[in-house]
Parts: sequence; structure tokens; C-alpha cells
Amino acid sequence: MFMPVGTRGAVKTLDTADMEALGTQTMLGNTYHLMERPGSDVIESLGGLHGFLDWDGHLLTDSGGFQVFSLKPKVTEDGATFKSIYDGAEQHLTPERAVRVQEQLGADIAMVLDVVPALPAPRDEVRSAMERTLRWAERNRATHTHPTQAQFGIVQGGIDVDLRAESAARTVEIGFDGYAVGGLSVGETRDDMVPALAAATAELPVDRPRYFMGLGDPIGLIEAVNNGIDMFDCVLPTRLARHGTALTSAGRLNLKRAEFERDDRPIDPEFEHPLSSRYSRGYLRHLLKAGEPTAGRIITLHNLAWLADLTDRMRSAIQTGTFQDLRSEIHERWS
Amino acid sequence: MFMPVGTRGAVKTLDTADMEALGTQTMLGNTYHLMERPGSDVIESLGGLHGFLDWDGHLLTDSGGFQVFSLKPKVTEDGATFKSIYDGAEQHLTPERAVRVQEQLGADIAMVLDVVPALPAPRDEVRSAMERTLRWAERNRATHTHPTQAQFGIVQGGIDVDLRAESAARTVEIGFDGYAVGGLSVGETRDDMVPALAAATAELPVDRPRYFMGLGDPIGLIEAVNNGIDMFDCVLPTRLARHGTALTSAGRLNLKRAEFERDDRPIDPEFEHPLSSRYSRGYLRHLLKAGEPTAGRIITLHNLAWLADLTDRMRSAIQTGTFQDLRSEIHERWS
Repeated sequence: MFMPVGTRGAVKTLDTADMEALGTQTMLGNTYHLMERPGSDVIESLGGLHGFLDWDGHLLTDSGGFQVFSLKPKVTEDGATFKSIYDGAEQHLTPERAVRVQEQLGADIAMVLDVVPALPAPRDEVRSAMERTLRWAERNRATHTHPTQAQFGIVQGGIDVDLRAESAARTVEIGFDGYAVGGLSVGETRDDMVPALAAATAELPVDRPRYFMGLGDPIGLIEAVNNGIDMFDCVLPTRLARHGTALTSAGRLNLKRAEFERDDRPIDPEFEHPLSSRYSRGYLRHLLKAGEPTAGRIITLHNLAWLADLTDRMRSAIQTGTFQDLRSEIHERWS
Repeated sequence: MFMPVGTRGAVKTLDTADMEALGTQTMLGNTYHLMERPGSDVIESLGGLHGFLDWDGHLLTDSGGFQVFSLKPKVTEDGATFKSIYDGAEQHLTPERAVRVQEQLGADIAMVLDVVPALPAPRDEVRSAMERTLRWAERNRATHTHPTQAQFGIVQGGIDVDLRAESAARTVEIGFDGYAVGGLSVGETRDDMVPALAAATAELPVDRPRYFMGLGDPIGLIEAVNNGIDMFDCVLPTRLARHGTALTSAGRLNLKRAEFERDDRPIDPEFEHPLSSRYSRGYLRHLLKAGEPTAGRIITLHNLAWLADLTDRMRSAIQTGTFQDLRSEIHERWS
């Protein structure tokens, strides 16, 4: 499944009723942003993230690690110290705090706080980040007490296949409800990414969900599923939508192009969806050129519906033994 | 009825399915903006405004007069010459062109091109604008040929009761499918507005709809209905929504206020609506502070639902003979 990202408590341009209409299984919330604004205590007092959004589906919260490490924090064995992007105040995030904040948010799936090295990096640095991630994983696991919240470990190790295999095996030894692969799809080539991913998933138990963090392009998705991944999230499909780019059976489509001015076809004539197919390319092109927020909304609905359909198709293809045919088709249409 | 304004072909933050969910009877399109972008010929080729929006409800297009006169045009007996706000090109709008453009757009109700004086103005100027509006009304009426499109005349005359009465009577003499009152609620006091409105509606036939252009505040609405008005439009309720202000049973509510941080009540506890009541003030305050477009969307849905409910209540109150009670209530709550 692909999980739409509601960074600050909403998928941009959509409300909770839209997520229900899309049939979304699981939404993401961003722990770093939500602990800063409005604060995890505020969300807890309003019924946790489920009550806050009035969302009965599943929710996953990341640990905040990815955002915090993008802020170039000072990292010690205890945790990461960094300046808030909101008010510049010094903040300190530890595995224990990441667990507690996520327990307050009350999502169904919480992620461990990991150490995310800026890649490319020397092997020593990648190993050292991986080792610290494992030590933090123990602390994350020991702190977690929420009775109905699953906790996922995160495999690190850069693009080094040995480190990825070791990270995966040792994370499984600690024992989590599910496993994520982090620190990939961050700029490396697909030829570097796939072996690292394969080395990790080979060590993961088949009866626990596997989640590739931050992946949203169709070829990436099908390659990841081909390597045993079950879950994805990414801001790309919704960000592209707000800039006028749709995911379609024929690849990416920039709806601002002049050729669509009088085009009465839907975004993707091969994909019918009640939320988006009723609107023509000509109408959407006009709304985009006019800067109307309704355009981003309709294309966001389309892109999320299209990705949900792609994961549905992958699931069916696996069940019917036709996954490699679907894989060839996606490569052909998106390459 | 209150008609939501889709200036450039969409009510900001909403799509056509939202208007259906709101039970909207009639939407407005802005002739000036649509004839500039994407152009009335483009819209005509995509099935007119109904096809363009995929909207089966009713549509009304203004004539473009209000926008054009706000651009300080050069006005002759033939028409108005002005510079496009999009590309600075010189444009010429005549009654004949306004009719033809609106016939291309294909709305159910088209408005005549009128002359809108900038108020306050000396009585001579107001009379002269009114006289030219009447001469143009004749040309508008003579040009109109669309078999299923109603055409409404527009009463002018500023805040002068005699001019308003004369303008109304002479517009009725020409004979339209409905009548609008234009050029009011443009900055004059309510004490100046109501007598001018009353003078106009006294001359209008009771079996034709009367439309007050550009009015959207609850006290204004109830005073206009008290003076025989049937239809309204205004960008205010949707613009307020995007800035975080809701219309409620207790008056205007600025949802950005700190006191709402942990408030789990809906926007208006006295008004339940499936599209908006499920979200708490605390959630909306957070989305507003975070700059999330979902906030404007939810409050837009609320404000339009709330105004539709107010007009429903006015209609029922008229039928049951309790309109003056409702009028007192609205004054008490909104003063």
C-alpha cells in the first residue's frame, strides 16, 4: 500500500472525508512538525492524532529522525540536538522522547528514532550510523509501552550490501512489529539502490510488514515490491499534483501544457475514478494557469487514486502470478 | 438563495462534487475573468460553462461590468475601453459583446452590461450612468437570442430613492426574465442602502426573481429579504473562510485565536453539518496556523453550508409567518 503524507495533520488540499472517499488504508503524520506545532500534548488532549483528524483508518507516524538529521544536528550517544525550524529554540530528541511523543500522538504504527547519515559517506561513517541506530533501536524498543500501537524498526547501512544485511539481521534480533528500510531513494542510482534493498529484505521475516520510507515513483515502487516491500510513503505524488503534474498510464503528464487547452479527455483515459475523471484536461489546465487551488486538489485526488490502483494491481498480479508482466508494463510506460 | 462565487470557474478550494454535496442551487461565474482566460470560445468548445465545470446545477454569469468599471475604463455610448488585467492589451466591451460572450458561456442566467458609477458621486453623474444603463439595457435585450438562457436587467441609481424607483420602473418596461439591484453594498451605510433598495423593489414585478448583487453578510441578507430580495452572491463568505473566519450562530468567529487551541467543539455547536462539523476548532486552528490549505477548504464548506441554511430558514420563516422573529434574532446575534 501507498500511504499519503499528511505532514502537519492533513494531506495538502484534502480533508479527512476525502481520504475516506479515496479508500485510503493508512495516512502518515510527521512527528517532528506535529511535536513542534501544535505540540503532542495538544493533540493528545484532542483525542490523539485519530481524534484530531477524525480519522478511523490507520495512521503511521515517523520518528522525526529524517527531519532532525536534515537540520544538521549535534549528535551524541544520548540523542540529537538541533534548532527548531519554527522559532530557533534548541531542541533535544532522544529515542525515549521520540517513543513518548509518538505514544501521545497515538498512531497505530510508530517508527524508531534512527540515525540518518548524509549520503554519500565513507563506509566508516555509514557503519557508525548503523551501529548507533541499532543501539538506539534497543532503547526505542525498551521504552515503548503503548498497548495497541505497533512499533517498526528501521534498517540503515547506506548502499553497502553487507552493512544492509547486517543491519537488517540485528534489527530483527531486537524484534519489532514490522521493519522499515530507511536512507534509500535519497539520490543514489537505481543500480545502487536495488542491491542494498535486496540485501536488507533477504534478512527480514516474511510474516512482518516491510516499509520502504520515502518512495513514490511507479518504477521505484514496482522494483521495491519485486524485492519484497509492502508499504510506501512519499510527498512526491501530492507535491507533483499541486504543481500540475499527474501520474498516468502513459507516464507523467504536465497538465499546464498548451496542447491541453481544448482537450476534453480526463487526466488518464485509461484510468476512471469518480473523484477526478469527470474533469477535463482543458478545465484543469485553465485552473492551473489561473492559480486556482481547486486544480491542485483534483490532481492530488487523481494521483493518490492512481497510486492506490497501482498497488491494487500489484497485489492482484502477485496473487495471479502475473507480477513480472505488470513490472514490464510499468517499465515500458514510465522509462 | 445565496449563490457561491466561482470567479475563474471554481469556488476556491472546492470542486464541483463539493458544490453538489453542499446542495448548491446556483453557482456564479465571472464573465470578465473567463472571457480573458481561458476565453469564452475555449469554454464553448468544452461544452460551455456547464460542461467545463461538469455542473448540472444552475449557473449565473455576471456581465463583466463590475470588473470593467473597477478598471476605470474610457466609456462612450458604444461601450467601455480598458486595459486587460492579464496582459495589458486594450479591450472593448459593449452590451452586444457581453451578451454574445455570455451566450457562449451558456449559463442559465445572464446579466446585462450596465454602467456602474463610482459612489459617492454627484446626482447628475448617477442619473447619467442610470440613463446609459437603460439605453444599454435595450441593446442587451435586443441582442439576446439564447433560447434557454434567462436574461436579467440591472437597476442602478445609487442611493437616490427617486432614481432607484425610476430605474426599476423603466427596466421593467423593457422587460427581463428577472431583475437585479446593482451598485449597492459598495460602502454606503445601511441607512442609505435600505431606502434605495426598497424604492427599487417596490417597482419590480412580484412574479420575477430579484437579485441583490454582491451581498453576503447575514444582517445585510435579512434586510434585503425583508425588502423583497430573493437571490444573493458575494465573495466575502469564501474569502473570510480562507482567512480563518467562520460565520456562526454567535456571529463571526476568528478560528486563529489562541483560545481555540484545545477546543474540541465544532465551528458552530448550534449548526451541525456533515461536511464540516466533524472537525474541531482545535484542529482548524492548528491547520490555519500551519498554513495548511485544508483549513480554508473546511471553513469554506462550513460558511457556504451555514449561509444556505440561513436562506432555508428565511424561506421557512416567510412561509410560517415568523420572518420578523428570525430578523430580530439575526440582528441580536450579529450586531
